[in-house]
Amino acid sequence: MSGPAIDLPLGRTAPPTPDDLVRWTAADSAARPTRLAHVRERLVAEGVDAYFGVRRENTRYLTGFVLGEGEEKVAGFSGQFLVSADETVVLADSRYRVQARDECPGARVENVYGAIASRWPELLASLRPVGGGDRGNLRRVAVEAGFVSHAMWTRLAAAAPDVELVPADGWIEALRQVKEPAELERVGSACAVADAALTRLLPQIRPGVTEHELALALEWEMRTNGAEALAFDVACLAGPRAALPHGSPGDRPVSAGAVLLFDFGAQVCGYRSDMTRTLFVGEPSARDLAIYGLVYDAQGAAFGALAAAVAAGEHPLNRAIDAAARDHITAAGHGDHFGHGLGHGIGLATHEIPSLGRLAPEAALPSPTVFSVEPGIYLDDETGVRIEDLVAFDPAADRLERLTAFPREVTVVG
Amino acid sequence: MSGPAIDLPLGRTAPPTPDDLVRWTAADSAARPTRLAHVRERLVAEGVDAYFGVRRENTRYLTGFVLGEGEEKVAGFSGQFLVSADETVVLADSRYRVQARDECPGARVENVYGAIASRWPELLASLRPVGGGDRGNLRRVAVEAGFVSHAMWTRLAAAAPDVELVPADGWIEALRQVKEPAELERVGSACAVADAALTRLLPQIRPGVTEHELALALEWEMRTNGAEALAFDVACLAGPRAALPHGSPGDRPVSAGAVLLFDFGAQVCGYRSDMTRTLFVGEPSARDLAIYGLVYDAQGAAFGALAAAVAAGEHPLNRAIDAAARDHITAAGHGDHFGHGLGHGIGLATHEIPSLGRLAPEAALPSPTVFSVEPGIYLDDETGVRIEDLVAFDPAADRLERLTAFPREVTVVG
Repeated sequence: MSGPAIDLPLGRTAPPTPDDLVRWTAADSAARPTRLAHVRERLVAEGVDAYFGVRRENTRYLTGFVLGEGEEKVAGFSGQFLVSADETVVLADSRYRVQARDECPGARVENVYGAIASRWPELLASLRPVGGGDRGNLRRVAVEAGFVSHAMWTRLAAAAPDVELVPADGWIEALRQVKEPAELERVGSACAVADAALTRLLPQIRPGVTEHELALALEWEMRTNGAEALAFDVACLAGPRAALPHGSPGDRPVSAGAVLLFDFGAQVCGYRSDMTRTLFVGEPSARDLAIYGLVYDAQGAAFGALAAAVAAGEHPLNRAIDAAARDHITAAGHGDHFGHGLGHGIGLATHEIPSLGRLAPEAALPSPTVFSVEPGIYLDDETGVRIEDLVAFDPAADRLERLTAFPREVTVVG
Repeated sequence: MSGPAIDLPLGRTAPPTPDDLVRWTAADSAARPTRLAHVRERLVAEGVDAYFGVRRENTRYLTGFVLGEGEEKVAGFSGQFLVSADETVVLADSRYRVQARDECPGARVENVYGAIASRWPELLASLRPVGGGDRGNLRRVAVEAGFVSHAMWTRLAAAAPDVELVPADGWIEALRQVKEPAELERVGSACAVADAALTRLLPQIRPGVTEHELALALEWEMRTNGAEALAFDVACLAGPRAALPHGSPGDRPVSAGAVLLFDFGAQVCGYRSDMTRTLFVGEPSARDLAIYGLVYDAQGAAFGALAAAVAAGEHPLNRAIDAAARDHITAAGHGDHFGHGLGHGIGLATHEIPSLGRLAPEAALPSPTVFSVEPGIYLDDETGVRIEDLVAFDPAADRLERLTAFPREVTVVG
C-alpha cells in the first residue's frame, strides 16, 4: 500500500460555543448505555461478573463523572466505579457527593471515605453478576491492574478472599479508540483552539524572546479562547534544543536563523488536540530547509498511504502507515534520526491506541478514529524538525481529513 | 495545652531570584548523601537489601531527577530509581538521557525502555545489598507499593522470583516531613509569590467578574512572577459555592454582599505553598462576619497552642493542635460544619505528613517542618469561610512563623 505524497482536505472545525458544550454533554449521556453494553459484552466474553475501574478517562467515559488531570491523586476513591449486570456504581466521598449526583444521573452513588477495603465485601454483595445469577453471587471481578496500586489490590483481595480479582488491561481503552461523532467533533474543536492560538502567537515571536515566555503566551491564548485546560504542557524548543524529542521550555532566547518547535494541544469538553509545528525564525539554513522538506514529504507519504486505503475501502495496518513515512526518511539516510513511532490515537487522553509505531502490535486501524501523524528528524546538538497533525479516519464514510489546520508548509517568523 | 488566640510573627520570605535557584539546587546536591544515608538506615532496620522507588517527589528528593506534575504518566520508567549499598540507579529512556545525566551527577543512569521486567534481573544483579554482602546477592527489595501498579508489581515478581518484593509505605515520606533550611526557604518563597499575586488581583475583583476569570488571572499573576508552576489548580468560589470544600471555578459571576474564597498555591524550585483567603465583595452580612470571626479565632487558638508548645520547648501532638481550633468552633455550635482536618505538611507535594487531623494517627509534630493551619465553617447552600496559612515550626531554634503574609483580617473588595 502506498501512494503519492499528498496533503489531506481540512476538516470543519471551530472553537466551542456554550451551546456545543451542552450538546456534547447530552451526546455523552445518550451514548453511555451503548458504551456500557459493549463493556458488558466484554465482561461476558472474559468470564467475569463485574468490572472495577479507577482510570479517570474510563470513569468519565462510562459514568460521566469528571476529574481533572491529576485530580485522582487527591480525590481518594471518588470517581472509582463498578459495572454490574444492571448498575453502574460511582464512589464519591462527601466532597464529591453533589458533583456525582449531578454528573451521574443514571448511577448509584456510594459514599466511600477512608479505607475502601472495609466497604468492599458489602459493595460486591450489592451487585448482580453480568453473566446472570443472584445478587452478590460474584466469583470473578475484573480490576484495572495497570492503574490500581499494588497496595490497593492487596487490600481488596484480602477483604473478599472468595472473589477472584482478574487483571483487566485495555478493555475500555479498546472501546474508546472507536470514536462517536460528538467525540470527533470535540477533538476537532480542540484543534481549532490550538490553530487559532498559534496564529495569534506569531507576531510575538522574535529573536530574544525566551522559550518559556512563548510557551506561556501560547498557553494563555488557548486557555482564554476556548480551552478548558491544556492537553499537556506546551513544549517550545529553540534551535539545537529541538533535537530533544522530550524537552521543556527554558530561559533560552530564540535566535535568528534557527528552528523553533512547538508541540502543544488544547482540551475541549474533555477531549484533546495535539499538534507540532517547527517554525523558522529568520532566514532558514539550507540544512534545516532540507530536513524540513524530508519530514514534510514523509508526512505526505503517510497521508498518501491513508488516502489510498480509504479509496480502496480498506483498513490499513498501523505499521504500514508508519512505514510509508519512515521509508522516505530512511531512504534519505536519516532512519536513525527518527527514533519514535509515527503516531497515536487521541481523545480523552493525549496518548491512546491505535499506536502507529513500528514496534506496536500489528493491527488494522479501527474506525471511526482520530490519530496523530508526526514524523520527525533529530540531529543531536544541531537541529530538530517534527510536523504533527491529527487525522480523522472513517473509510466507511469516505472520510479522511486533517483536523489541525495550521499550514504545514515552511513558515518564517520574526 | 492551650493558650490565647494569637497571630504569629511573619517569616522573612521573598520571590525567587535566579541566584536563589542556583543556590537551592546546590543545597539539594549537598544534602542528598545525608538523605540517602537515612534511607539506608531505614532499609537496614527493615531488613531489606535495596529500594525501588517510583513516586516523582521521592525521585527528585533522592536523585535530583525532575519530573513535572503528571509527567510520570508519559515518562515510561524514566525517573524510577534503585538505592543499593553504594549506588543510586536512575532509569531513563532515550528521551530523558541528557536530563538524567545533567541532573543526577552522582547516579548511574540506566536506559530502560519498553518492558522493565526484561531488565529487572540484570539490574538487581548489579547491586550490592545495603546490609552487606556480594553484588547481586539481593533477597528482599522494598518497592513503593502504593505507587507501583499491581500489573507492574506482578511483572517484577515474576521476572526475579527468587527476590522477595517488600511493600514499602511512607518510608521516604517520613524523611521528607523534616525540612532542611533550603527546603523551608523555598516553601516561603512560594508563599511570597502567592501573597503578591493575590495583592495584585484585588483591583480586578468586582461584581460581575466570574470565578473562572479570577482564577485564571490569579494563576497568571503567580506564573509570570516567580512560580514555575501552580501547586494545584486555583479554587475560586463565590457565595454559597464557598460551602463546597472541593469545588472548581465556574462561569458564575461574583455578586456583592457575598464571600469569595480563594484556595491557591505556587511552586518554586520544586516546593509548594498553599493558602486560603475568604474575601468579602462589598458590605459583608452580619452572618458572614460572625462566621469569619469564629474561623479567625479558631485559627488564632491553634497558633496560640503552637506558641505555648514552642515556649515550653515541646513538640505538641498533631491532634492537640487540631483540637485547639476545633473546640472553638464546636463551642459555637458549628462542630458539624468543620468536616476536614486542621492541616497538613507541605513541600515537594502539596499534601504531606504531618497530618493535623482529628482522625490522623496521633503523633508529635516533627521539626523543623512546615504545615498548614486551615479551619473552616461551611453552611450548605449558604456560605463558607476558610482561612489557611502555612506555619514554619522549629522549637529547637525557637522558630514559629507564619509564612503566608497576606492579612488574615476581614478584607472587603469590589
